[in-house]
Amino acid sequence: MTPAPRMKRRELLTIGGLAALGAGVASPAVAQAQPEVKWRLTSSFPAVLDNLYGGADIFARAVADLTDGRFSIEIHPAGEIASALDGFDAVKKGEIQCAQTALHYHWGVEPSLVFATAVPFGMNARQQNAFFKQGGGTDFFNEVLVSHNLYALPAGNTGCQMGGWFRKEVRAAADFRGMRFRISGLAGRVMQKLGSVPQAVARSDLYSAFEAGKLDAASWVAPVDDEKLNLSKFAPYYYYPGWFQGSMAVHIVMNLKAWNDLPKAYQAAVRAASDMANAEMQARYDAQNTAALKRLVAGGAQLRAFPADAMDAFWQATNDTMQEIAATDEKFARAQELYLAFRNDEYLWWQVGEYPYDNFIIRQRARG
Amino acid sequence: MTPAPRMKRRELLTIGGLAALGAGVASPAVAQAQPEVKWRLTSSFPAVLDNLYGGADIFARAVADLTDGRFSIEIHPAGEIASALDGFDAVKKGEIQCAQTALHYHWGVEPSLVFATAVPFGMNARQQNAFFKQGGGTDFFNEVLVSHNLYALPAGNTGCQMGGWFRKEVRAAADFRGMRFRISGLAGRVMQKLGSVPQAVARSDLYSAFEAGKLDAASWVAPVDDEKLNLSKFAPYYYYPGWFQGSMAVHIVMNLKAWNDLPKAYQAAVRAASDMANAEMQARYDAQNTAALKRLVAGGAQLRAFPADAMDAFWQATNDTMQEIAATDEKFARAQELYLAFRNDEYLWWQVGEYPYDNFIIRQRARG
Repeated sequence: MTPAPRMKRRELLTIGGLAALGAGVASPAVAQAQPEVKWRLTSSFPAVLDNLYGGADIFARAVADLTDGRFSIEIHPAGEIASALDGFDAVKKGEIQCAQTALHYHWGVEPSLVFATAVPFGMNARQQNAFFKQGGGTDFFNEVLVSHNLYALPAGNTGCQMGGWFRKEVRAAADFRGMRFRISGLAGRVMQKLGSVPQAVARSDLYSAFEAGKLDAASWVAPVDDEKLNLSKFAPYYYYPGWFQGSMAVHIVMNLKAWNDLPKAYQAAVRAASDMANAEMQARYDAQNTAALKRLVAGGAQLRAFPADAMDAFWQATNDTMQEIAATDEKFARAQELYLAFRNDEYLWWQVGEYPYDNFIIRQRARG
Repeated sequence: MTPAPRMKRRELLTIGGLAALGAGVASPAVAQAQPEVKWRLTSSFPAVLDNLYGGADIFARAVADLTDGRFSIEIHPAGEIASALDGFDAVKKGEIQCAQTALHYHWGVEPSLVFATAVPFGMNARQQNAFFKQGGGTDFFNEVLVSHNLYALPAGNTGCQMGGWFRKEVRAAADFRGMRFRISGLAGRVMQKLGSVPQAVARSDLYSAFEAGKLDAASWVAPVDDEKLNLSKFAPYYYYPGWFQGSMAVHIVMNLKAWNDLPKAYQAAVRAASDMANAEMQARYDAQNTAALKRLVAGGAQLRAFPADAMDAFWQATNDTMQEIAATDEKFARAQELYLAFRNDEYLWWQVGEYPYDNFIIRQRARG
């Protein structure tokens, strides 16, 4: 996979004593052509999550367009060349050049990576992007990833997610006690503090788990993805806000040597393609969620806001959980400090800028 | 400025009967190299607006990085090779290849272009991006621009702006009557309905206009830009939200022939570079506004929210003004229909997704 070294124009023209060639050929067409590079990408997402997996397609197409097809990336959904969770290791070992993943899937290896994807009550998507680009986020996570032989760039976001599907209405924080809740990662650990019992249920088994009465609640993604689960028959209460995924950032994770071996213009193409996938994925979620939500409600989903005391309990349990992890992992503690300081500053500006603006328009709409 | 046509490998190798060359030179380095292209860009923004003008720099650097320096764009702030408002025409005529501008500056020529930049009570930045990419926005505006021999891509956003600096506190909509308000474009026309008298005052004259008592209020941009105006001594009341610029999109506007003449990979580079400038400009505003706001308040700025009846009056006057324009310009009417349907759908999702999430965190922060 190592590309051939680039040639300078002078070198090219003198190879084989053919310097005279320069006179016969339009010089721009001879100089500085780039090598052919072929990569494979394994995604942590199945093709059915077409906005998430679609980000890999946008990324690969952009890289090809930017390099006139000379740098091509063959994309594979989860399970084809690596499982959803094995891509990270396959890329680390160099068996595959890159993966599209949610870095927090790998928080067992590196707890600090949760801040690269989503933490409960974390930043919204725009704030998270500002954190990556201007708050030291991308640099921080790559310092962590270098010991895993990896380099990662943000390349997608879902925006705010939903709080999940529930069999019964929840009226207070106490209702979460004993609840069999399909929720994973840090959020699952937070819910344990409220007495819930996190369940690992694959997407394909969600419908039957609810049908068989083996599950009380399940979190998934946003309306446009949730719609395909068809859960409203068994778990009609559809809660918001998605306090554990106020946004969810997706990354392209590359083998560090594969990245370092790329010519500079190809590295630039990867950076640009990541930004394009990031913007396009967000635009698709934002553009498609409303229609999906309308269809869900028309089909029987009952929209509910989490009760205030539950939200407070989630908040407290989140803070407690984060403190526990910070006490055991120094990189997590550093990431948390960097992240929360930035989040708090962002919300100070939001409080004056974005939020009162959105608030007025939402209230005007409600008034008709 | 027309780039040389690209050569196919076969053509290159047979020019001058030198087909044998292929044997002596590593083939990747010979094929499909790209021509040198040099463009100039004129910005509508002065260099002192470093986040806005900075977008042109990000754009030009990205294009250079993506093409290994073969496609270079020399950038000029407003007034250097064209004035802030003359870039549009210079690019139309092909005297300059591209401009960085706010398309609504040119609403006198094409009223519908206001929807490409900012309208009062328009979409926030993320919604506007979704509109460009997934709501038909970019295609619509380019249909309008084709008759001006132009092609444009979004390449920056400020996010929500502030409502401006005021000499006196405003307690009701009636306080805007007779107010000498530095505000331009469609928003200026809206304020006339409240009895204000819009003033055209250059940035460099704002301080002295307030000092001399010739101005009652002035809108500018966001805290990070407003801070440099140093107006809090004479106009200490700093109002929010910026109801007339809930976001402000910046475009790269290109001469249509210059765009069409670009090789495909260079067009891809321009698209990618625009997306990168778009993301980076937003990240800079989002990351820098809080600190600027804190300094402004420490320096004497008095933060105030517009009174509720004033907000309602702005809303009503906006709707009336838009209806008047729609009745006289068919393209404006079509753009408005497309835009408002998308905005209303976006805010329906916001009401369930983003807004309650932001709301909870802002309230938690307020509680400490």
